[in-house]
Amino acid sequence: MQNRLSRIGGQVRGIQKMIDEDRYCVDILVQLSAVQSALKNVGYSVTERHMKHCVTDAIEKGEGSDSIEELMTVLKQFSK
Amino acid sequence: MQNRLSRIGGQVRGIQKMIDEDRYCVDILVQLSAVQSALKNVGYSVTERHMKHCVTDAIEKGEGSDSIEELMTVLKQFSK
Amino acid sequence: MQNRLSRIGGQVRGIQKMIDEDRYCVDILVQLSAVQSALKNVGYSVTERHMKHCVTDAIEKGEGSDSIEELMTVLKQFSK
Amino acid sequence: MQNRLSRIGGQVRGIQKMIDEDRYCVDILVQLSAVQSALKNVGYSVTERHMKHCVTDAIEKGEGSDSIEELMTVLKQFSK
Repeated sequence: MQNRLSRIGGQVRGIQKMIDEDRYCVDILVQLSAVQSALKNVGYSVTERHMKHCVTDAIEKGEGSDSIEELMTVLKQFSK
Repeated sequence: MQNRLSRIGGQVRGIQKMIDEDRYCVDILVQLSAVQSALKNVGYSVTERHMKHCVTDAIEKGEGSDSIEELMTVLKQFSK
Repeated sequence: MQNRLSRIGGQVRGIQKMIDEDRYCVDILVQLSAVQSALKNVGYSVTERHMKHCVTDAIEKGEGSDSIEELMTVLKQFSK
Repeated sequence: MQNRLSRIGGQVRGIQKMIDEDRYCVDILVQLSAVQSALKNVGYSVTERHMKHCVTDAIEKGEGSDSIEELMTVLKQFSK
Protein backbone atom coordinates (compact mmCIF):
# COMPACT_ATOMS: atom_id res chain seq x y z
CA MET A 1 0.00 0.00 0.00
CA GLN A 2 2.86 2.38 0.81
CA ASN A 3 4.30 1.97 -2.70
CA ARG A 4 0.93 2.77 -4.25
CA LEU A 5 0.61 5.90 -2.11
CA SER A 6 4.17 6.96 -2.98
CA ARG A 7 3.29 6.56 -6.66
CA ILE A 8 0.15 8.63 -6.11
CA GLY A 9 2.27 11.34 -4.47
CA GLY A 10 4.55 11.29 -7.53
CA GLN A 11 1.53 11.56 -9.86
CA VAL A 12 0.27 14.59 -7.94
CA ARG A 13 3.67 16.28 -8.31
CA GLY A 14 3.55 15.39 -12.00
CA ILE A 15 0.20 17.18 -12.34
CA GLN A 16 1.68 20.22 -10.62
CA LYS A 17 4.47 20.22 -13.20
CA MET A 18 1.91 19.96 -16.04
CA ILE A 19 0.08 23.00 -14.66
CA ASP A 20 3.38 24.91 -14.38
CA GLU A 21 4.10 24.04 -18.02
CA ASP A 22 0.55 25.17 -18.94
CA ARG A 23 -0.15 21.81 -20.47
CA TYR A 24 -3.51 21.11 -22.25
CA CYS A 25 -6.34 20.88 -19.71
CA VAL A 26 -7.69 17.61 -21.09
CA ASP A 27 -4.30 15.95 -20.54
CA ILE A 28 -4.32 17.22 -16.95
CA LEU A 29 -7.84 15.81 -16.44
CA VAL A 30 -6.66 12.44 -17.74
CA GLN A 31 -3.90 12.44 -15.10
CA LEU A 32 -6.32 13.51 -12.37
CA SER A 33 -8.58 10.59 -13.33
CA ALA A 34 -5.63 8.21 -13.03
CA VAL A 35 -4.82 9.47 -9.52
CA GLN A 36 -8.47 9.17 -8.51
CA SER A 37 -8.65 5.62 -9.73
CA ALA A 38 -5.41 4.71 -7.90
CA LEU A 39 -6.75 6.30 -4.71
CA LYS A 40 -10.02 4.39 -5.04
CA ASN A 41 -8.09 1.13 -5.30
CA VAL A 42 -6.16 1.95 -2.15
CA GLY A 43 -9.48 2.63 -0.46
CA TYR A 44 -10.90 -0.71 -1.56
CA SER A 45 -7.82 -2.48 -0.20
CA VAL A 46 -8.20 -0.71 3.14
CA THR A 47 -11.93 -1.57 3.16
CA GLU A 48 -11.31 -5.24 2.41
CA ARG A 49 -8.58 -5.45 5.07
CA HIS A 50 -10.89 -3.76 7.55
CA MET A 51 -13.70 -6.20 6.82
CA LYS A 52 -11.40 -9.21 7.08
CA HIS A 53 -9.98 -8.10 10.41
CA CYS A 54 -11.81 -5.52 12.51
CA VAL A 55 -15.36 -6.24 11.23
CA THR A 56 -14.78 -10.00 11.39
CA ASP A 57 -13.46 -9.73 14.98
CA ALA A 58 -16.45 -7.62 15.96
CA ILE A 59 -18.87 -10.14 14.43
CA GLU A 60 -17.14 -13.01 16.20
CA LYS A 61 -17.59 -11.11 19.49
CA GLY A 62 -21.26 -10.52 18.68
CA GLU A 63 -20.70 -6.78 18.06
CA GLY A 64 -20.96 -6.89 14.27
CA SER A 65 -23.86 -4.48 13.83
CA ASP A 66 -22.09 -1.35 15.10
CA SER A 67 -18.94 -2.19 13.18
CA ILE A 68 -20.93 -2.68 9.96
CA GLU A 69 -22.81 0.59 10.44
CA GLU A 70 -19.53 2.42 11.07
CA LEU A 71 -18.12 1.00 7.86
CA MET A 72 -21.26 1.89 5.87
CA THR A 73 -20.99 5.51 7.00
CA VAL A 74 -17.45 5.85 5.70
CA LEU A 75 -18.18 3.85 2.52
CA LYS A 76 -20.92 6.33 1.63
CA GLN A 77 -18.40 9.12 2.03
CA PHE A 78 -15.70 7.27 0.15
CA SER A 79 -17.83 6.42 -2.89
CA LYS A 80 -19.15 9.92 -3.50
CA MET B 1 -4.56 25.19 -8.01
CA GLN B 2 -0.90 24.54 -7.14
CA ASN B 3 -1.62 25.14 -3.45
CA ARG B 4 -4.50 22.71 -3.53
CA LEU B 5 -2.32 20.07 -5.18
CA SER B 6 0.47 20.68 -2.64
CA ARG B 7 -2.08 20.17 0.14
CA ILE B 8 -3.25 16.96 -1.53
CA GLY B 9 0.35 15.77 -1.68
CA GLY B 10 0.66 16.50 2.04
CA GLN B 11 -2.57 14.59 2.75
CA VAL B 12 -1.25 11.57 0.84
CA ARG B 13 1.94 11.63 2.92
CA GLY B 14 -0.26 11.91 6.02
CA ILE B 15 -2.10 8.74 5.01
CA GLN B 16 1.21 6.96 4.54
CA LYS B 17 2.13 7.94 8.08
CA MET B 18 -1.23 6.64 9.37
CA ILE B 19 -0.56 3.30 7.70
CA ASP B 20 2.95 3.19 9.19
CA GLU B 21 1.40 3.83 12.61
CA ASP B 22 -1.17 1.07 11.93
CA ARG B 23 -3.97 3.52 12.55
CA TYR B 24 -7.64 2.38 12.49
CA CYS B 25 -8.73 1.57 8.93
CA VAL B 26 -11.92 3.65 9.13
CA ASP B 27 -9.86 6.76 10.00
CA ILE B 28 -7.64 6.05 6.99
CA LEU B 29 -10.72 5.72 4.76
CA VAL B 30 -11.99 9.07 6.02
CA GLN B 31 -8.68 10.67 4.97
CA LEU B 32 -8.76 8.94 1.59
CA SER B 33 -12.27 10.34 1.04
CA ALA B 34 -11.00 13.83 1.85
CA VAL B 35 -8.19 13.52 -0.71
CA GLN B 36 -10.63 12.22 -3.32
CA SER B 37 -12.97 15.09 -2.78
CA ALA B 38 -10.09 17.61 -2.98
CA LEU B 39 -8.91 15.99 -6.23
CA LYS B 40 -12.42 16.12 -7.66
CA ASN B 41 -12.60 19.84 -6.95
CA VAL B 42 -9.30 20.40 -8.72
CA GLY B 43 -10.73 18.47 -11.65
CA TYR B 44 -13.85 20.61 -11.73
CA SER B 45 -11.71 23.76 -11.73
CA VAL B 46 -9.65 22.43 -14.63
CA THR B 47 -12.87 21.47 -16.47
CA GLU B 48 -14.43 24.88 -15.96
CA ARG B 49 -11.24 26.66 -17.07
CA HIS B 50 -11.07 24.41 -20.13
CA MET B 51 -14.68 25.15 -21.06
CA LYS B 52 -14.21 28.88 -20.59
CA HIS B 53 -11.07 28.99 -22.75
CA CYS B 54 -10.32 26.12 -25.11
CA VAL B 55 -13.92 24.97 -25.70
CA THR B 56 -15.16 28.54 -26.01
CA ASP B 57 -12.38 29.37 -28.53
CA ALA B 58 -13.22 26.24 -30.53
CA ILE B 59 -16.92 27.15 -30.60
CA GLU B 60 -16.13 30.69 -31.70
CA LYS B 61 -14.07 29.22 -34.59
CA GLY B 62 -16.97 26.89 -35.49
CA GLU B 63 -15.08 23.80 -34.23
CA GLY B 64 -17.08 23.31 -31.03
CA SER B 65 -18.35 19.80 -31.70
CA ASP B 66 -14.97 18.03 -31.62
CA SER B 67 -13.87 19.99 -28.58
CA ILE B 68 -17.07 19.11 -26.72
CA GLU B 69 -16.77 15.42 -27.61
CA GLU B 70 -13.15 15.41 -26.45
CA LEU B 71 -14.21 16.92 -23.13
CA MET B 72 -17.09 14.45 -22.72
CA THR B 73 -14.70 11.52 -23.16
CA VAL B 74 -12.44 12.70 -20.36
CA LEU B 75 -15.39 13.74 -18.13
CA LYS B 76 -16.73 10.19 -18.30
CA GLN B 77 -13.33 8.94 -17.19
CA PHE B 78 -13.01 11.59 -14.50
CA SER B 79 -16.41 10.98 -12.92
CA LYS B 80 -16.07 7.24 -12.54
CA MET C 1 -37.18 -0.61 -0.14
CA GLN C 2 -40.05 -1.38 -2.51
CA ASN C 3 -41.52 2.10 -1.92
CA ARG C 4 -38.20 3.72 -2.70
CA LEU C 5 -37.88 1.73 -5.93
CA SER C 6 -41.47 2.61 -6.89
CA ARG C 7 -40.64 6.27 -6.34
CA ILE C 8 -37.51 5.86 -8.50
CA GLY C 9 -39.65 4.31 -11.24
CA GLY C 10 -41.96 7.32 -11.01
CA GLN C 11 -38.99 9.71 -11.23
CA VAL C 12 -37.75 7.93 -14.35
CA ARG C 13 -41.17 8.33 -15.97
CA GLY C 14 -41.08 11.98 -14.91
CA ILE C 15 -37.78 12.45 -16.74
CA GLN C 16 -39.28 10.84 -19.83
CA LYS C 17 -42.08 13.39 -19.68
CA MET C 18 -39.56 16.24 -19.32
CA ILE C 19 -37.78 15.02 -22.44
CA ASP C 20 -41.09 14.78 -24.32
CA GLU C 21 -41.83 18.37 -23.28
CA ASP C 22 -38.32 19.41 -24.42
CA ARG C 23 -37.59 20.79 -21.00
CA TYR C 24 -34.25 22.57 -20.26
CA CYS C 25 -31.38 20.07 -20.19
CA VAL C 26 -30.01 21.34 -16.88
CA ASP C 27 -33.38 20.64 -15.19
CA ILE C 28 -33.32 17.11 -16.62
CA LEU C 29 -29.78 16.60 -15.29
CA VAL C 30 -30.91 17.72 -11.85
CA GLN C 31 -33.65 15.06 -11.93
CA LEU C 32 -31.21 12.42 -13.16
CA SER C 33 -28.92 13.27 -10.23
CA ALA C 34 -31.82 12.83 -7.82
CA VAL C 35 -32.61 9.37 -9.23
CA GLN C 36 -28.93 8.39 -9.03
CA SER C 37 -28.71 9.45 -5.44
CA ALA C 38 -31.93 7.55 -4.58
CA LEU C 39 -30.56 4.44 -6.31
CA LYS C 40 -27.28 4.72 -4.43
CA ASN C 41 -29.15 4.82 -1.15
CA VAL C 42 -31.06 1.68 -2.08
CA GLY C 43 -27.72 0.09 -2.88
CA TYR C 44 -26.28 1.04 0.49
CA SER C 45 -29.32 -0.44 2.25
CA VAL C 46 -28.93 -3.69 0.32
CA THR C 47 -25.18 -3.70 1.12
CA GLU C 48 -25.76 -3.13 4.83
CA ARG C 49 -28.45 -5.82 4.97
CA HIS C 50 -26.13 -8.21 3.14
CA MET C 51 -23.29 -7.54 5.57
CA LYS C 52 -25.53 -7.96 8.59
CA HIS C 53 -26.93 -11.27 7.36
CA CYS C 54 -25.12 -13.22 4.67
CA VAL C 55 -21.59 -11.92 5.38
CA THR C 56 -22.11 -12.25 9.14
CA ASP C 57 -23.39 -15.85 8.74
CA ALA C 58 -20.40 -16.69 6.54
CA ILE C 59 -17.98 -15.24 9.09
CA GLU C 60 -19.64 -17.16 11.91
CA LYS C 61 -19.16 -20.35 9.87
CA GLY C 62 -15.51 -19.47 9.26
CA GLU C 63 -16.13 -18.71 5.55
CA GLY C 64 -15.92 -14.90 5.83
CA SER C 65 -13.06 -14.33 3.40
CA ASP C 66 -14.86 -15.49 0.24
CA SER C 67 -18.02 -13.65 1.21
CA ILE C 68 -16.08 -10.42 1.81
CA GLU C 69 -14.23 -10.74 -1.50
CA GLU C 70 -17.53 -11.34 -3.31
CA LEU C 71 -18.97 -8.19 -1.74
CA MET C 72 -15.87 -6.12 -2.58
CA THR C 73 -16.17 -7.10 -6.25
CA VAL C 74 -19.73 -5.85 -6.47
CA LEU C 75 -19.01 -2.74 -4.34
CA LYS C 76 -16.32 -1.69 -6.82
CA GLN C 77 -18.89 -2.01 -9.59
CA PHE C 78 -21.57 -0.24 -7.63
CA SER C 79 -19.48 2.76 -6.68
CA LYS C 80 -18.24 3.55 -10.15
CA MET D 1 -33.09 8.54 -25.02
CA GLN D 2 -36.71 7.60 -24.35
CA ASN D 3 -35.95 3.94 -25.12
CA ARG D 4 -33.04 3.95 -22.72
CA LEU D 5 -35.20 5.46 -19.98
CA SER D 6 -37.96 2.91 -20.67
CA ARG D 7 -35.38 0.14 -20.32
CA ILE D 8 -34.19 1.69 -17.06
CA GLY D 9 -37.78 1.73 -15.81
CA GLY D 10 -38.05 -1.96 -16.70
CA GLN D 11 -34.79 -2.71 -14.85
CA VAL D 12 -36.10 -0.95 -11.74
CA ARG D 13 -39.26 -3.08 -11.85
CA GLY D 14 -37.01 -6.12 -12.29
CA ILE D 15 -35.13 -5.22 -9.11
CA GLN D 16 -38.44 -4.87 -7.26
CA LYS D 17 -39.31 -8.39 -8.39
CA MET D 18 -35.91 -9.68 -7.19
CA ILE D 19 -36.56 -8.17 -3.77
CA ASP D 20 -40.04 -9.72 -3.68
CA GLU D 21 -38.47 -13.08 -4.49
CA ASP D 22 -35.84 -12.49 -1.76
CA ARG D 23 -33.09 -12.96 -4.26
CA TYR D 24 -29.40 -12.92 -3.17
CA CYS D 25 -28.35 -9.36 -2.22
CA VAL D 26 -25.20 -9.45 -4.35
CA ASP D 27 -27.29 -10.21 -7.46
CA ILE D 28 -29.54 -7.25 -6.60
CA LEU D 29 -26.48 -4.99 -6.21
CA VAL D 30 -25.24 -6.09 -9.63
CA GLN D 31 -28.59 -5.03 -11.13
CA LEU D 32 -28.52 -1.72 -9.26
CA SER D 33 -25.04 -1.05 -10.68
CA ALA D 34 -26.34 -1.72 -14.18
CA VAL D 35 -29.19 0.78 -13.72
CA GLN D 36 -26.75 3.37 -12.34
CA SER D 37 -24.46 2.98 -15.28
CA ALA D 38 -27.37 3.26 -17.74
CA LEU D 39 -28.58 6.40 -15.96
CA LYS D 40 -25.08 7.90 -16.08
CA ASN D 41 -24.96 7.36 -19.81
CA VAL D 42 -28.29 9.12 -20.25
CA GLY D 43 -26.86 11.97 -18.21
CA TYR D 44 -23.77 12.20 -20.40
CA SER D 45 -25.96 12.31 -23.51
CA VAL D 46 -28.05 15.11 -22.01
CA THR D 47 -24.84 16.95 -21.01
CA GLU D 48 -23.31 16.62 -24.48
CA ARG D 49 -26.53 17.77 -26.15
CA HIS D 50 -26.72 20.70 -23.76
CA MET D 51 -23.14 21.74 -24.52
CA LYS D 52 -23.66 21.44 -28.26
CA HIS D 53 -26.80 23.54 -28.20
CA CYS D 54 -27.57 25.76 -25.23
CA VAL D 55 -23.96 26.34 -24.10
CA THR D 56 -22.78 26.84 -27.68
CA ASP D 57 -25.59 29.36 -28.35
CA ALA D 58 -24.74 31.22 -25.15
CA ILE D 59 -21.06 31.38 -26.10
CA GLU D 60 -21.91 32.62 -29.58
CA LYS D 61 -23.97 35.41 -27.93
CA GLY D 62 -21.06 36.25 -25.62
CA GLU D 63 -22.88 34.83 -22.56
CA GLY D 64 -20.84 31.64 -22.24
CA SER D 65 -19.52 32.15 -18.74
CA ASP D 66 -22.87 31.96 -16.91
CA SER D 67 -23.97 29.00 -18.99
CA ILE D 68 -20.73 27.14 -18.25
CA GLU D 69 -21.00 27.86 -14.52
CA GLU D 70 -24.60 26.65 -14.52
CA LEU D 71 -23.52 23.41 -16.19
CA MET D 72 -20.60 22.94 -13.77
CA THR D 73 -22.96 23.21 -10.80
CA VAL D 74 -25.18 20.43 -12.08
CA LEU D 75 -22.22 18.30 -13.26
CA LYS D 76 -20.84 18.34 -9.71
CA GLN D 77 -24.20 17.09 -8.48
CA PHE D 78 -24.52 14.52 -11.23
CA SER D 79 -21.08 12.97 -10.76
CA LYS D 80 -21.38 12.45 -7.02
